[in-house]
Amino acid sequence: MSGRLAIVGLGPGDVRYLTPQASEALAAAQALYGYGPYLDRVPARPGQARYASDNREERDRAAAALKAAAEGATVAIVSGGDPGVFAMAAAACEAIEAGPERYRTLDVEVVPGVTAMLAVAARIGAPLGHDFCALSLSDNLKPWDLIERRLDAAASAGFVIALYNPVSRARPWQFGYALERLRRHLPPATPVVFGRAVGRPDEHIDVVMLERAVTAQVDMATLVIVGSRETRVIQRPGRVPLVYTPRTAATVSA
Amino acid sequence: MSGRLAIVGLGPGDVRYLTPQASEALAAAQALYGYGPYLDRVPARPGQARYASDNREERDRAAAALKAAAEGATVAIVSGGDPGVFAMAAAACEAIEAGPERYRTLDVEVVPGVTAMLAVAARIGAPLGHDFCALSLSDNLKPWDLIERRLDAAASAGFVIALYNPVSRARPWQFGYALERLRRHLPPATPVVFGRAVGRPDEHIDVVMLERAVTAQVDMATLVIVGSRETRVIQRPGRVPLVYTPRTAATVSA
Repeated sequence: MSGRLAIVGLGPGDVRYLTPQASEALAAAQALYGYGPYLDRVPARPGQARYASDNREERDRAAAALKAAAEGATVAIVSGGDPGVFAMAAAACEAIEAGPERYRTLDVEVVPGVTAMLAVAARIGAPLGHDFCALSLSDNLKPWDLIERRLDAAASAGFVIALYNPVSRARPWQFGYALERLRRHLPPATPVVFGRAVGRPDEHIDVVMLERAVTAQVDMATLVIVGSRETRVIQRPGRVPLVYTPRTAATVSA
Repeated sequence: MSGRLAIVGLGPGDVRYLTPQASEALAAAQALYGYGPYLDRVPARPGQARYASDNREERDRAAAALKAAAEGATVAIVSGGDPGVFAMAAAACEAIEAGPERYRTLDVEVVPGVTAMLAVAARIGAPLGHDFCALSLSDNLKPWDLIERRLDAAASAGFVIALYNPVSRARPWQFGYALERLRRHLPPATPVVFGRAVGRPDEHIDVVMLERAVTAQVDMATLVIVGSRETRVIQRPGRVPLVYTPRTAATVSA
């Protein structure tokens, strides 16, 4: 008897982003595991158990789901956005590697979703239209000097930069420090996109120049995209501007 | 009278990746514009016109769709994966910026989708579980030395690297050169994931060590993910291995 574990990406907050593949995986599960607010997005289904846990309990959540799957159940771990981007898929792999041998015989399926940077980018044009990177500003699991080194590398080489986890109650200064670091490499007028709660009723998108970006513009639900030297802003009468990075790039001016 | 333009991401080749938002946008369009093989994936709809064009004609395709929208039509440009990642959204923005003022008054909506790197990552575990970048190896629109500089920056700073457009008939040597460049920074045993045609019947996924990666493993439908020093492989009896990058990172060993 071998169980099944699906790790399912819901996409951003709106059901219009949920893929049919994700809907199927959620429907097939006997039990769902996830951070409470993500579970709340999944419609109730008779007979399906739900185990909500806190945001910081990824490892325990993965372990509980794996244990149930190893006992023969079909279970799903629910993740916001894409489970493979700063989310539950890596936590589940860590738990599989650290767990008993039988975890390696389970049927494991990762169901991708629209990750926050793609949703924010779509709302404002095409800021990720050329080479880009995704970087978590959380220094809970890596040292801050490594984050600064990556900001330096990405900005100086001309990557557009999507910043996940810009701030939290326990990490109030990191985003400000990151902005200072980026200003060493990028012109003051570089476009910065703030996308908050995309796909939800309280969605808010804002574009400012790097020299005017401040920490007060971010919270835990914000995804930030910092342009490169090539990123452009198209002003539009009566509409939010379009921000895009052209497909052409001449060279890097360092 | 003001028309509407949607730029719609289909996700990878299977309809199970197509979001409800994308389905709605496709259904609402009076005319679809796109690369032939992408248009072929969209079910026919009575009264809906289709304009197929070649892979290389992004700018002309965007211009034609914008012209129709400016004349009052509701049109959609169809894109594989996510339209914002090395695809049609940036081309449309370029055409809007270069076009007549009335293009800036149009209702433009970019509909995100599951881009290839997310689909490939999901099929093999969570190789993008930590900081990563997306880089096109095409030197049609940027010089090769810039690509090499970005490979150097990303690999030495510890980003996992997703390589789009690794090869084409007109670009036979670029992927081999990129591998050589990456070997300067990364250990021989670094995992490299080759994902071909994910979500299609001819899907093929392979994992090799960087020292064994060769150009013969890629074609135009292949997305490559090169791990970082932290990326791990979990062998599983009778199954493809899981490849993942842990959420923790100690430091960069350069």
